[in-house]
Amino acid sequence: MSIRDIAVLARKASLKLAGISGEVKNKALRAINEALIDNQNAIITANKKDLKKAKEQNIGKPLLKRLKFDGLKIRTVCDGIDSLIELPDPLGKTLHALELDSGLELYKVSCPIGVIGVIFESRPDALVQISTLCLKSGNAVLLKGGREALETNRVLAQIISESSEQAGLPKGWLGLLETRSDVAEILDLDNYIDLIIPRGSNRFVKYIMNNTTIPVLGHSSGICHVYVDSAADLEIAVKIAVDSKCQYVAACNAMETLLVHKDVANEFLPKLIKSLKQWDVEVRGCKRTQTIIDCSPATEADWKTEYLDYILSIGIVDSVDEAIAHINRYGSGHTDSIVTNNKSTAEKFMNLVDSADVFLNCSTRFSDGYRYGLGAEVGISTNKIHARGPVGMEGLLSYKWKMLGSGQIVSDYSGSNGKKFTHKTLNRNFYLK
Amino acid sequence: MSIRDIAVLARKASLKLAGISGEVKNKALRAINEALIDNQNAIITANKKDLKKAKEQNIGKPLLKRLKFDGLKIRTVCDGIDSLIELPDPLGKTLHALELDSGLELYKVSCPIGVIGVIFESRPDALVQISTLCLKSGNAVLLKGGREALETNRVLAQIISESSEQAGLPKGWLGLLETRSDVAEILDLDNYIDLIIPRGSNRFVKYIMNNTTIPVLGHSSGICHVYVDSAADLEIAVKIAVDSKCQYVAACNAMETLLVHKDVANEFLPKLIKSLKQWDVEVRGCKRTQTIIDCSPATEADWKTEYLDYILSIGIVDSVDEAIAHINRYGSGHTDSIVTNNKSTAEKFMNLVDSADVFLNCSTRFSDGYRYGLGAEVGISTNKIHARGPVGMEGLLSYKWKMLGSGQIVSDYSGSNGKKFTHKTLNRNFYLK
Repeated sequence: MSIRDIAVLARKASLKLAGISGEVKNKALRAINEALIDNQNAIITANKKDLKKAKEQNIGKPLLKRLKFDGLKIRTVCDGIDSLIELPDPLGKTLHALELDSGLELYKVSCPIGVIGVIFESRPDALVQISTLCLKSGNAVLLKGGREALETNRVLAQIISESSEQAGLPKGWLGLLETRSDVAEILDLDNYIDLIIPRGSNRFVKYIMNNTTIPVLGHSSGICHVYVDSAADLEIAVKIAVDSKCQYVAACNAMETLLVHKDVANEFLPKLIKSLKQWDVEVRGCKRTQTIIDCSPATEADWKTEYLDYILSIGIVDSVDEAIAHINRYGSGHTDSIVTNNKSTAEKFMNLVDSADVFLNCSTRFSDGYRYGLGAEVGISTNKIHARGPVGMEGLLSYKWKMLGSGQIVSDYSGSNGKKFTHKTLNRNFYLK
Repeated sequence: MSIRDIAVLARKASLKLAGISGEVKNKALRAINEALIDNQNAIITANKKDLKKAKEQNIGKPLLKRLKFDGLKIRTVCDGIDSLIELPDPLGKTLHALELDSGLELYKVSCPIGVIGVIFESRPDALVQISTLCLKSGNAVLLKGGREALETNRVLAQIISESSEQAGLPKGWLGLLETRSDVAEILDLDNYIDLIIPRGSNRFVKYIMNNTTIPVLGHSSGICHVYVDSAADLEIAVKIAVDSKCQYVAACNAMETLLVHKDVANEFLPKLIKSLKQWDVEVRGCKRTQTIIDCSPATEADWKTEYLDYILSIGIVDSVDEAIAHINRYGSGHTDSIVTNNKSTAEKFMNLVDSADVFLNCSTRFSDGYRYGLGAEVGISTNKIHARGPVGMEGLLSYKWKMLGSGQIVSDYSGSNGKKFTHKTLNRNFYLK
């Protein structure tokens, strides 16, 4: 089948999925779970082929680690499916209910988005997590995985499709786009795909964003800041700065630039440097920073760079306003944290920093779907439309307006003698009498 | 100033607007209200210039009517501003609150989107409504109005800018893009504009959607259906069909295609035709329809056409499933209504028709922000991302995540001996102690 044929089938399936009950979806999730366990050996065999090829091509260790899909990882994704089964059905929830007139009732009700296109890195567990999240939220899904996981993805997609379709899901709700297929071709399918979630390198995500009219959920970079205010507890500031920078440097929510108020820079920076030493962090500082600690100069380019490495740029600012302006200018709208004990400074920072996540007195590294209690995370969004910050199942939902009438027509409500709307809030969920 | 300069200024203003209190915004709204009344004569004089030019150019009556901005219309927009002042501040609302651990609290809080770009028809009242809605929701706005309203828009924008800036709003929060400026240039400003709301003809909206990477809120067409089921009350069905088609044919929520179940077509269609007679509606029917009533044949193109006129295409279907399939294939995801007394048929239709608004036993013409009780309407969206259906102030809001800590770092919560998250729902609004 061509990419377009697979997408057409997914679109058709999505129209049916909207009417599938929570029970049938849970039955399908249980069937997937069992099928994954029953077919463990086939999965592991396929994964070994991928691993062998990857080793032959001298692919780096971190990627090999992500690519590996063994019994332990299979059990982990199955546990994830179990918790998904426990969650209440997110669909059909009444978000708003209003009587327009006696016998004329309006309900805003949650529903699936439709077809989600996911382009993901070479992590077979991502395939299972994303497709089961889409299933639970009633969405069809088109999956395009990394080329290195070809064999594993093929087996996993087949197992998930077959077992769930046998349990009652519409044919083709999950479509695997094989790696030969062109990403550009997917980006053209705006008639069939409602939302694209790209995962992977920043350059790749940016490419997707610039080359499709389909809405994209994601972030192209994470230039996160910690600002140490003049009213900061400096011991806490050191702890937070070190954790934000070093706890996992390759994460999008790691700090790249530290901003320090001039009044505390002399005391704070030497303390910080002492703590950073064990991590061997390269420090690049602004002119004033260079007069306090030993570091290389930070250039304009540094403020715009997501290092994802043991490198930190440091700037000294005169005020919280300067810190806010710096962050709004150079940041990527991801996660920024202030360390201060001054309430009004904190309030200003949290209101005026235009980022998805704004923190007080804690590490930027907390910006994450699991830590936010969202369950599985489909990604972190720096969009301001639809979903922002860490996105869980909610980001896979839309809503529709359902109106229940008994023959009402608009002409009766028009003109100066027209009937009036009551617009009375109803405290009940949508149901048909 | 160039378009880019105006946009840069609006972006800067938007970053300040996020910190402006509800009181100051209401003060600005009151100032606008007073200034509009005080400057009535200047507004009406400018509008007369526009009207004179339009008449010289033989512009049609409907447009002249929309373009006219007299004392009555000024009082109407001022009433609208008064009701906006009465509404609670939509910003800073806590949407979700969660304790992650003792002393570590996460809040999801409503905030403005940022800069809204509105491209609107030659209706001066739209300029006032949209800019005050943006103000109340804390957004900066770039306005591009129709060329016919040049003089009126210029005066209105100046009055609104000056009076609101004197009341404390940041300079440049409202930017008027004069009509000479190229729409294409606006569509390129993805670094400065967060959301575009185009109003106007379908062809124009479609052009916008296809030519920008900025998210677009709107609908390019409204191909709405009424389906008369075999279990319909036929008297009600006639009333609803006539209202949906004829009450205001030029509206996007008017019916374009009527689908009728085969079992009731013989009885229903002649009744309908009788009622449609007084409106002089041209009927185009499918083969089966042509055997029952006198009409011209409907072609494939008719099912895809938004007539916005006294023309109706009629199709006979064998089942509700065929009706649903027709609507999902040819409809535009706007508003579709079923007439039936069968509960499970209604349920199926409302779940499976993939449209923003799905109605039971009432006219499609109810799909409208005012009738939905949303107050002013910024548009109707057939997007499934962000906002769907009639969109009020809610569509101008985003949210940010605010986290309050007391020195927490992620490394304490990592590894097998890491602290556990409590993830306990908090029943309180965000505030700084």
